[in-house]
Amino acid sequence: MYTEKYLFEFTRNVFMKMGCCESDALKIAEVFTAAELRGIPSHGMIRIKDYYQLWKAGRINVKPDVRIVHETPSTAVVDGDGAVGMVAANRSMELAIEKAAKAGTGWVSTRNSNHYGIAGYYAMMALKHDMIGLSMTNANPQVAPTFSVSPMLGTNPIAVAIPAGMQPPFVADFATTPIARGKLVVAEKKGEKVPYGFVQDKLGNPSDDPAILKAGGSMLTLGGDYVHGSHKGFCLSAIVDIFSAVCSGANFGPFVPPSVAYLPVLDEKVGEGTGHFFGAMRIDAFQDAAAFKDSMDLWITTFRQAKPAEGREKVIIPGDPEREKEVRLRAEGITLLPAVVKEMKEIAEVMGVAFEG
Amino acid sequence: MYTEKYLFEFTRNVFMKMGCCESDALKIAEVFTAAELRGIPSHGMIRIKDYYQLWKAGRINVKPDVRIVHETPSTAVVDGDGAVGMVAANRSMELAIEKAAKAGTGWVSTRNSNHYGIAGYYAMMALKHDMIGLSMTNANPQVAPTFSVSPMLGTNPIAVAIPAGMQPPFVADFATTPIARGKLVVAEKKGEKVPYGFVQDKLGNPSDDPAILKAGGSMLTLGGDYVHGSHKGFCLSAIVDIFSAVCSGANFGPFVPPSVAYLPVLDEKVGEGTGHFFGAMRIDAFQDAAAFKDSMDLWITTFRQAKPAEGREKVIIPGDPEREKEVRLRAEGITLLPAVVKEMKEIAEVMGVAFEG
Repeated sequence: MYTEKYLFEFTRNVFMKMGCCESDALKIAEVFTAAELRGIPSHGMIRIKDYYQLWKAGRINVKPDVRIVHETPSTAVVDGDGAVGMVAANRSMELAIEKAAKAGTGWVSTRNSNHYGIAGYYAMMALKHDMIGLSMTNANPQVAPTFSVSPMLGTNPIAVAIPAGMQPPFVADFATTPIARGKLVVAEKKGEKVPYGFVQDKLGNPSDDPAILKAGGSMLTLGGDYVHGSHKGFCLSAIVDIFSAVCSGANFGPFVPPSVAYLPVLDEKVGEGTGHFFGAMRIDAFQDAAAFKDSMDLWITTFRQAKPAEGREKVIIPGDPEREKEVRLRAEGITLLPAVVKEMKEIAEVMGVAFEG
Repeated sequence: MYTEKYLFEFTRNVFMKMGCCESDALKIAEVFTAAELRGIPSHGMIRIKDYYQLWKAGRINVKPDVRIVHETPSTAVVDGDGAVGMVAANRSMELAIEKAAKAGTGWVSTRNSNHYGIAGYYAMMALKHDMIGLSMTNANPQVAPTFSVSPMLGTNPIAVAIPAGMQPPFVADFATTPIARGKLVVAEKKGEKVPYGFVQDKLGNPSDDPAILKAGGSMLTLGGDYVHGSHKGFCLSAIVDIFSAVCSGANFGPFVPPSVAYLPVLDEKVGEGTGHFFGAMRIDAFQDAAAFKDSMDLWITTFRQAKPAEGREKVIIPGDPEREKEVRLRAEGITLLPAVVKEMKEIAEVMGVAFEG
């Protein structure tokens, strides 16, 4: 069991040892810790080893010159200079917020970045400025477009955070696939099958085998199959990819670089690194801020009062489970998987960083 | 069989007889005709009777003062003054494009409007300006949030149009439900069952009965059930609702007014009319326009080359089927259902408009 502070400081120390400046390391540590606190451990401490190995392989720039390469009053393209994704993403979202403060909205497309952790973190950065925040990213390909067997898209998440008044904010953060990749890994380790609609085999037949990706299979887009609207999931995933990479000049689709060092750098590239897309909209660019918040409170309480289905307790407002988890884990502490603790211990030893395993 | 021109002129004539000015009637007719041409007849001529009846019931303002009520350099709120949806939506999307020309992007939330037809039409208005277009709308409630049996959301579509160079544009236009409501109506008329994952009964149990909405059932969000990610479809539908209505001051969720006259006006309201949301982003607000188009061409050709699943011919790029249909129907003419022709004939007689049934 670890405290938030302990994991935060460990992460900061590791990235500073890699050569990141303290300001960057703090930003990175905050996103890693937020993933653990919000109950998304697949983007938490388990990723430190990936980043460590990418750094060892010279595939991460710890002294990046993250810079604006193009801009208008409400837009910009940011070049992440090969930075840790959280560093490029933080600067990009800050810029979107700065633009929104002046122009009403700000939209930033980022290239030459890496895995940025949980999408929701950046969307939520807008909340304290009374802005709606938006964040999306492409990712290494493992999802096939509808009617295809080629893994050409990442799980390409979309996050949208919307301020409320008395009610907690609305925070949606979801992959454009029925499930996260991590759930396949868990099912495989447990020797369980998965429901149909998550993955297909190498010919495109429905499969319930969570290990099918190792046998030429691929994940499916949200909707699962064509009958249930997987082409809509494909549209969403494609939009994330285009906004993140065609707008910025990053790699798109099958060319997105792997976020783990055990997969080789691709031979072919069509842009620079991984791409993200960020947005910020001042709520008072539409309504008086207090009126917007009142209205959003009413939206949330209206939906909370929806009649539950038989056997269900209540409707979940996007953001509720993660926020509740955060409160609980802040109080109780964060439990890590033994395998993750082992990895952290190994890194701690090699890097000369304190860690109680 | 009718020509595009014939249906366009009929629609224009009907709306002019209702009292619309010619400029508004032309815009309305264009969206109605585009729906037929693009193979979305559920939003075409079949809706003329609905609009006629709303007009008869005094629920449509044919002499609207569509006006900007709030703005920043990149945003605006438009009050549609109870207009036919196509009129309010056209003006709003034009405004988003005007804002984008100056600020890089433009975002308009619209209240006090009505059913606006196909979402894709407005997104596509941006293409000729070398802009990415975005359009979404809320709609009368028939969809239940995950874990609930209360129909609180419309089929809330999202449309995104992205310019390319040599390739045709990318045009995604989809409801945030697995299927459109129209498909349930068709299945019911044919006496067929529907696959599970589209609708639920009044207790929230899975159902294959397309008529279940008449018995207290509701439609499900994209994903179908929780296991397959229906909560992500709920997030999407909620975002459409909030951007369209909380941002603009329109009615949201269960308060969205019906788009047909046989359903009564709701007793309670939380805003004005139906809400929409529009966006326009100059492609050269991110990249040199020619470079963006080259890159988008490469995106499209890359995805066209995805290996098809067994028994499938090819991957479909969003927009392909509708564009192919449009070319074919322009050449061959548009066939209408006998029931729709009958309705148009009745309206033609009452309104004194020429129509060959």
